[in-house]
Amino acid sequence: MRHIVVDAMGTDTAPAPEVEGAILAVRAGWAKVTLAGPQDLLRRELARRDARGLGIEIAHASQVVTMEDAAAKAFRLKRDSSIRVAARLVRDGKAHGMVSAGNTGAVMATAKITLGVLEGVERPALAAVLPNSKGTATALLDVGANVDCEVHNLEQSAVMGEIFYRVIFDAKRPRVGLLSNGQETHKGNSLTREACARLKALPLNFVGYVEGRDIYNGRLDVIVTDGFTGNVVLKTSEGMVEVISSMLREALSSTTSAKVGYVLARRALQAFKKRVDYSEYGGAPLLGVRGVCIICHGGSNANAIKNAVRVASEFALGQVNEKIEHELAGVSLGRK
Amino acid sequence: MRHIVVDAMGTDTAPAPEVEGAILAVRAGWAKVTLAGPQDLLRRELARRDARGLGIEIAHASQVVTMEDAAAKAFRLKRDSSIRVAARLVRDGKAHGMVSAGNTGAVMATAKITLGVLEGVERPALAAVLPNSKGTATALLDVGANVDCEVHNLEQSAVMGEIFYRVIFDAKRPRVGLLSNGQETHKGNSLTREACARLKALPLNFVGYVEGRDIYNGRLDVIVTDGFTGNVVLKTSEGMVEVISSMLREALSSTTSAKVGYVLARRALQAFKKRVDYSEYGGAPLLGVRGVCIICHGGSNANAIKNAVRVASEFALGQVNEKIEHELAGVSLGRK
Repeated sequence: MRHIVVDAMGTDTAPAPEVEGAILAVRAGWAKVTLAGPQDLLRRELARRDARGLGIEIAHASQVVTMEDAAAKAFRLKRDSSIRVAARLVRDGKAHGMVSAGNTGAVMATAKITLGVLEGVERPALAAVLPNSKGTATALLDVGANVDCEVHNLEQSAVMGEIFYRVIFDAKRPRVGLLSNGQETHKGNSLTREACARLKALPLNFVGYVEGRDIYNGRLDVIVTDGFTGNVVLKTSEGMVEVISSMLREALSSTTSAKVGYVLARRALQAFKKRVDYSEYGGAPLLGVRGVCIICHGGSNANAIKNAVRVASEFALGQVNEKIEHELAGVSLGRK
Repeated sequence: MRHIVVDAMGTDTAPAPEVEGAILAVRAGWAKVTLAGPQDLLRRELARRDARGLGIEIAHASQVVTMEDAAAKAFRLKRDSSIRVAARLVRDGKAHGMVSAGNTGAVMATAKITLGVLEGVERPALAAVLPNSKGTATALLDVGANVDCEVHNLEQSAVMGEIFYRVIFDAKRPRVGLLSNGQETHKGNSLTREACARLKALPLNFVGYVEGRDIYNGRLDVIVTDGFTGNVVLKTSEGMVEVISSMLREALSSTTSAKVGYVLARRALQAFKKRVDYSEYGGAPLLGVRGVCIICHGGSNANAIKNAVRVASEFALGQVNEKIEHELAGVSLGRK
């Protein structure tokens, strides 16, 4: 049984989703949970929900980071924020991992500085787990932790993403691809061309260049890219779901039959949208930090928080970080 | 009245869509059209369709570039390809512009080498015209002509894209944005940070950084990015439409009412998909070459070819290239 600390003040409607999600995760037997946030508020919330006997503890934090806070400033000025209290519990070995639906930039910066990075890792990478047309999951990384990537950052992302996928999805040999503007080896930009040759030399099931359309067709398990491109891809996907939704609403408002169709279509689209809102799907792991850090979307509900606690627990139990350090030590990366 | 040459051998089902599209465009009074391709074949195709009196001419080309041909090789080895014959007519002033649905890489390379680039332009940029939720169009460039961009390439793209949008969509002050991983000025990668400052200094209605979701929400008219990111965004969008289609098929096959909804949803999605398949929407202009070059999707039908002829004609009539040279001469770009 792993011990996960949940930042209780991250979601847009905090702390309700966090408190309920923690209760659900503990009831499911997935983890022991501590909530980080204002003690009095959290005590009241737990009391209202009959959480007696679940052993949910509270780690008091007097400050809350908002979406408006810049990442570095939040770290510097809010030393007693719920994010930082959660990260400290992980750093000090009092919890195996943390879950936060707070300001992504602030969570990434706080986790990186407080926890430090794993041996062999230069910069952490944020992995989004996306749905695909085969009904499986495709991990895309980096989606924003590291916008100016060099070749060895992409190599490290490939190794980290592959191990994460192997452990969490119980996959033997995940297929890893490098995102490019075409499959042929002469395609790509100067970064991907060098990285492609390097990734071939790693002990991975590396298929070479893949294209944007491979993100959703299920041909790949892990897709590696720089944090700039990954972030743009993710937000483009979110925007596209919006426009398709509104377009379908128009197309399906003409007749009663069509309206029934729209209700069903909307339900399917909402399910899809939740998963494209990356962190809904059990959250997005920040790979490469010394500890477990799962970042959820600000709009997460209790179920999303519950799933993130499960992923954090599996991440710790599956010893993802130990494997990352071990495998990075065994390969020679093109570090400058 | 402008004279447009259509590469008759580009689409997957060539030359039928090209011949029919040419006939439709001439009947609409949009342009005089010459078809480039094998003379005997095209004569037969025109005769079958009663094109007498339309004045459609044939420029004989004995070779055809396939999707398998590498761009540079196609240019070097197929000197009498329909793409190259079309480009030569434009270069020699015998046509005002060309339309091709052939191998995009080969068309770009052939147009660039045969036509040359405009004064003040270092590299051409391919602009995709995408649908958005406001029902207007957003131009995204570059989507693949120039994968390794420097700051001055992005500046040139911004100027070229803005002029193109102004002329083709009859817009007074198109809103121009620079694609980034966040709207705040501290976001972006090293390329976009420098470019953002430079774009602010240009005489454009520049709104600063925009995000992936702005591609489809209609907030912007022109979005500038490097050819690598632009290509990935475009192909991600195509892939996403596929997966949403298949997901809706499943969701809407349960009841008769739902099936009616699916038929309507599919129709709406197909219309959307055609526009995301960028070049369906009147084709994607290759901006910056000395002449007019509109690139269509390989799956284009006669209507798409017809619309591309219209865009090529408007491009020439609107003197887009003259404006590009004039405006680039008037601004000091951060050229190295």
